[in-house]
Amino acid sequence: MNPDVEQSVQAALAGLRARPEVHSLFLVACGGSFSQMHVAKYAVDREARSLVADSYTSAEFVMRDLPRLGAGAAAIFCSSSGNTPETVAAAQFARAHGAYTIGLTTKPQSPLAQAVDCAIGYESQPALGSGDAVAAILLRLVFGLLRDREGNTRYEPLMRSLPCLPELVERAQAVVAPAARRWAEENKRAPVIYTLSSGPNYGVMYSFSLCLLQEMQWIHSQPIHAGEYFHGPFEITDFDVPFLAVQGLGPCRKMDTRAITFAKKFSRRVEVIDLEALDLSGIVPEMRDFMQPLVLLPVVRTYAMHLAEDRGHPLTVRRYMWKMDY
Amino acid sequence: MNPDVEQSVQAALAGLRARPEVHSLFLVACGGSFSQMHVAKYAVDREARSLVADSYTSAEFVMRDLPRLGAGAAAIFCSSSGNTPETVAAAQFARAHGAYTIGLTTKPQSPLAQAVDCAIGYESQPALGSGDAVAAILLRLVFGLLRDREGNTRYEPLMRSLPCLPELVERAQAVVAPAARRWAEENKRAPVIYTLSSGPNYGVMYSFSLCLLQEMQWIHSQPIHAGEYFHGPFEITDFDVPFLAVQGLGPCRKMDTRAITFAKKFSRRVEVIDLEALDLSGIVPEMRDFMQPLVLLPVVRTYAMHLAEDRGHPLTVRRYMWKMDY
Repeated sequence: MNPDVEQSVQAALAGLRARPEVHSLFLVACGGSFSQMHVAKYAVDREARSLVADSYTSAEFVMRDLPRLGAGAAAIFCSSSGNTPETVAAAQFARAHGAYTIGLTTKPQSPLAQAVDCAIGYESQPALGSGDAVAAILLRLVFGLLRDREGNTRYEPLMRSLPCLPELVERAQAVVAPAARRWAEENKRAPVIYTLSSGPNYGVMYSFSLCLLQEMQWIHSQPIHAGEYFHGPFEITDFDVPFLAVQGLGPCRKMDTRAITFAKKFSRRVEVIDLEALDLSGIVPEMRDFMQPLVLLPVVRTYAMHLAEDRGHPLTVRRYMWKMDY
Repeated sequence: MNPDVEQSVQAALAGLRARPEVHSLFLVACGGSFSQMHVAKYAVDREARSLVADSYTSAEFVMRDLPRLGAGAAAIFCSSSGNTPETVAAAQFARAHGAYTIGLTTKPQSPLAQAVDCAIGYESQPALGSGDAVAAILLRLVFGLLRDREGNTRYEPLMRSLPCLPELVERAQAVVAPAARRWAEENKRAPVIYTLSSGPNYGVMYSFSLCLLQEMQWIHSQPIHAGEYFHGPFEITDFDVPFLAVQGLGPCRKMDTRAITFAKKFSRRVEVIDLEALDLSGIVPEMRDFMQPLVLLPVVRTYAMHLAEDRGHPLTVRRYMWKMDY
């Protein structure tokens, strides 16, 4: 793991310690970066006795103009380029309102890095497991903050578990590779592909639907929440409607399993990524629920890479993004 | 407006006044009822100085098992039948954890009504404007609570504005009727229809995508957030991809307008419901931002009713819901 990242994370935690009045945490970004915030929101929800967290896409965050955004708040922003206009504006907005601001970006000289109190650099390698990936940094911040505020004990097992990620993810990708190849061939002409997930994994499949399928493959999609599936979306289930479903670990598994069981009854095209079928033994058991999205994100990338190859439509192709003003 | 509803709302507000320790509000339901909670979450975000609100689909709420769920919490649930198993379970769960629980249902003898501290009955008339509709009751609870806690002054203008809704909505539906008829004909063979919205209106279009298009019409959809559109979904925009977009009032309008302007450049099938084109003069100006979803919900119903008629697929048809165990 990268010592520069660790130094920045510690600086951010020190900055938070210097602000004992902070009781609200805002998690703000756009698209793929926004989807990563679910991991941090989930950890706060499951663990915090008094800290509250909320997550918004950047423009909505500024638009809501929450009266709670002030000295009692901290806000974490993320933009790979550090240049996403809505996210830079949101960071400036939060800082001007007195919140303590932290920014994750791959570009240490970027506008986002300059807009925040504390910038944390990371390398963007979405196909690799890493204790320095965005979601891993977010967990380090959240569990460090909860340790300092509330005596939460998960920071140490988190730090013990993170170094195993590169090898663990490589093994997991090898396990799913045959299924990913078959799935890509079966779905290369699909006009619509739904994802199905819940709990800590929902953010990963949100990014799979919006960034990998819609943005990078021009395939229609919706990230269906397994708990919402039975209250509307399940009526579009039919023999030929494809679902890429996640069967997660921990408390969300029951919800996932119920939705998958139903979908499989009426669709012949339900592909399941079962996290119990992967070897997560390097992760301390108590941390698997929180860390499963860190494994899932690079694992679903394998599915996207095979799909892109079979469709002759590289993941780098865009028609609008970065090509014009919008 | 119905005096029984008013009596129940006042009982709920009295129950909340008896619990000054409450600082967290949880808004919990499934599907169409869940979508209504956005109105309440938006009002708390925009107005509260210290109260925090969060919204979950029922199964996810129980699964998260938040340590903050206790005597310092209140929770509002909604289920039209009062029989939604996940919502009844969530209400029982919250009450057992010491939270003050309020339940909205059309069935005063239902399991949900029996599971909560305070039940509020309502009539489900999704095509009509009403100060006793779910979202209206939620605003009465939120602004009543904020008045009692924080001296917020919007309860009185809210109550002054609500009685105009039946007539105001009827007029608005007449205004959009020709566009809704044309839109239905143009889109009756569309395999996918996206919605595009933000801010207080997002919940309405979430229900349009999940409940009206997917559930009741078996049409593929995703409720795209106008702020997220440029960070993934906009790449699926093409000349023949249909969007039903909302151009809202107040601070969300800028975000909506930006997305609509882009979508119209590359799709010939962007239908815009412009809330500025409707006569909302019965609503006190300061309340229009909060109350616009109460107008939008029955207005988009007009679009759904024409679509159902043109497709020969009534809104009441289901293949799975209520027909089997799941």
